[in-house]
Amino acid sequence: MRAEIIAVGSELLSFSRTETNSLFIASKLIPLGFEIPRKWVVGDREGEIRAALQAAADVADVVIVTGGLGPTNDDITREVTAAFLGRSLKEDSRILAVLEERYGRFGLRLTENNRKQAQVPESAHVIPNPQGTAPGLLLVEGKTLIFLLPGPPRELYPMVDAHVLPLIQQHKKTSKVFSRQLKVAGEAESRVDSRIENIYKAYPEVETTILSSPGIISLYFVWKGDENSARADQTLDELSSRVESELGESVFTRGECSLAEVLGNSLRKDSLTLATAESCTGGWISKMLTDVPGSSDYFLGGVVCYSNAIKESLLGVPSELLAEYGAVSEEVASSLARGVQKLLRSDIGLAVTGIAGPGGGTEEKPVGTVFLGLALGNTVEVRKLSLPGDRDMVRKRTSNIALDWLRRRLL
Amino acid sequence: MRAEIIAVGSELLSFSRTETNSLFIASKLIPLGFEIPRKWVVGDREGEIRAALQAAADVADVVIVTGGLGPTNDDITREVTAAFLGRSLKEDSRILAVLEERYGRFGLRLTENNRKQAQVPESAHVIPNPQGTAPGLLLVEGKTLIFLLPGPPRELYPMVDAHVLPLIQQHKKTSKVFSRQLKVAGEAESRVDSRIENIYKAYPEVETTILSSPGIISLYFVWKGDENSARADQTLDELSSRVESELGESVFTRGECSLAEVLGNSLRKDSLTLATAESCTGGWISKMLTDVPGSSDYFLGGVVCYSNAIKESLLGVPSELLAEYGAVSEEVASSLARGVQKLLRSDIGLAVTGIAGPGGGTEEKPVGTVFLGLALGNTVEVRKLSLPGDRDMVRKRTSNIALDWLRRRLL
Repeated sequence: MRAEIIAVGSELLSFSRTETNSLFIASKLIPLGFEIPRKWVVGDREGEIRAALQAAADVADVVIVTGGLGPTNDDITREVTAAFLGRSLKEDSRILAVLEERYGRFGLRLTENNRKQAQVPESAHVIPNPQGTAPGLLLVEGKTLIFLLPGPPRELYPMVDAHVLPLIQQHKKTSKVFSRQLKVAGEAESRVDSRIENIYKAYPEVETTILSSPGIISLYFVWKGDENSARADQTLDELSSRVESELGESVFTRGECSLAEVLGNSLRKDSLTLATAESCTGGWISKMLTDVPGSSDYFLGGVVCYSNAIKESLLGVPSELLAEYGAVSEEVASSLARGVQKLLRSDIGLAVTGIAGPGGGTEEKPVGTVFLGLALGNTVEVRKLSLPGDRDMVRKRTSNIALDWLRRRLL
Repeated sequence: MRAEIIAVGSELLSFSRTETNSLFIASKLIPLGFEIPRKWVVGDREGEIRAALQAAADVADVVIVTGGLGPTNDDITREVTAAFLGRSLKEDSRILAVLEERYGRFGLRLTENNRKQAQVPESAHVIPNPQGTAPGLLLVEGKTLIFLLPGPPRELYPMVDAHVLPLIQQHKKTSKVFSRQLKVAGEAESRVDSRIENIYKAYPEVETTILSSPGIISLYFVWKGDENSARADQTLDELSSRVESELGESVFTRGECSLAEVLGNSLRKDSLTLATAESCTGGWISKMLTDVPGSSDYFLGGVVCYSNAIKESLLGVPSELLAEYGAVSEEVASSLARGVQKLLRSDIGLAVTGIAGPGGGTEEKPVGTVFLGLALGNTVEVRKLSLPGDRDMVRKRTSNIALDWLRRRLL
């Protein structure tokens, strides 16, 4: 079973917007047994969209086209697909009524552009879009299912879950994919690979993928053998637990959890509260912590102590320490951790001070020099990091390492 | 002049990692006059990589392949490309020496896997990679330039700037593309489009693209007419300034600046200092502010006041206010703004309190209800927002609207 994804939008080819819809769609189709051997990004132009549709529809069981269904003039996916399939477009009165109601709520009347979102190709199945104005469409062409879906993720995602997957399962015989996942923090990719390669190489029927991002490595094991599900589960469990015992506490989850979620669960379980003092990360650690719904259970808050005055006046770092050792030092990291713990009356204080660059580096403390401080009860510990990369990388890696450090200390 | 980009990596097809290298590469090739009509993402598998190389090399002047040059077992781009071109691989002693030196610095010896990064196809031009272990390669095949480049952005980006672009310019006659850009904050996409469509439709030789992300809309105008550069510049200037006068102060930049950068420049110019008090955004605003190098000139820091206790004890919000109006209220937003301004002795205090969801909403204050407070000198202003979308969207949109509000107030 083969699926292809065509993301339509000139902006995705030419400028600075990331295409993420296809990843979401892939994460939903792969567990149904689909292979996605190819992914397309094409501009909002008739020729390019048509060529991609032609090539994909020739070989795929399911083609998912995202984008180009909006009300603006560059949105032409609906029209081009109808023409490609030789189907005429008709205004659908129910869609029109929904659009009128939606715009009416904001006191607006439909423009000609808005009306084109009510156009539907012959024999199309309409997929409702409760989050936006462009409905989705399913066009069945021989054995191929062609879905046209809106580009904005908050519209697309719920439509895929509620309608696209059930429609695919209704039309196609989908199978089950066996996989396991481990996420690792605090280790370099090459080191992880060299520690585990002898293990995963012993399982040729499993495809092992190693992904790294600043501070986090993800391991994926996907079964490629026969359809014997007992053997698949047994093999994957065995491989995954051998890898896990080799990597030990570096593995922070077997699931989709973020590092901040795992740390949060551990803080909640131990009824501990956390406060942060961030200099060079500038709020990124607290942003990551509060990405998690319910983080107010354990995260009290933090101080972004970008200026030395705040380190001193608010967090009580002695001015002599700042003068003698500098803001980026073991001594100040320790004092910040203790200071924020005291100020916010938390069980734990986590502090960061460093040089993220591009400026500010010295020979003694080059860009990438970061000190972490961790106050746990009455103890304070300090770590020094020397990180590669640019400002963004240093800040992101620092944030992940800080969260991971605390996670390990709570094990 | 046609370029195609092939991103290699099974993870890019199957799981949750975004492919962004191709956008960076596109942003460099388009100004040289390249059209990029298609982009590929293929897995780390011989058949898929070979098929993409074949199709792309058939029609493109330049093919850029990223990823799959690393030391792990799933990295096979180098080998597959050499086989596809019928060229043998040889160990390059200079590359080997660089690798040995690099690993040696960390007290490591080369493994067999590491050594394969020193393999080079016949007649390849080697592109140095000062940030990592995998060198890039240029293979000239007839009229087509095939570049193999490493996947990690911090390695890839400087290699493209320092070597790939000069090599392309040396082999191909590149032209100049004319374009203008405007970035808009605080307006909805459909509203922007309906305000300006009569303007841009009057310029059929210009391709207009409208992009939206939570809180920010980007407008791109690209000249598609003849090669008369004076006419292109004149037309684009005229269109762009007509759009700019229609949208007024909603336009925050004509360049690549972020909203935080534009705001930062304005604060620096006026010698004003800023402090933030963030509840529901949890540090995201200060993270955005500190993404900008040099932000310590005007950003003193902030308080992430996630718990009510911190709002009260640290920022001086009276407990009666919290009890009577609730933490998410006009009164508390105003008090937080004033409180952080006083606490951090800044000229400006910017505060956010709201319900990002998924939990916490009520009939009176549903998820997406956010109050912003802005203390400027002796005045305090408050705004109420009712935002659509999930937790991430509400938080991101809130952060952008808050920065934009302050930007407009400083105009």
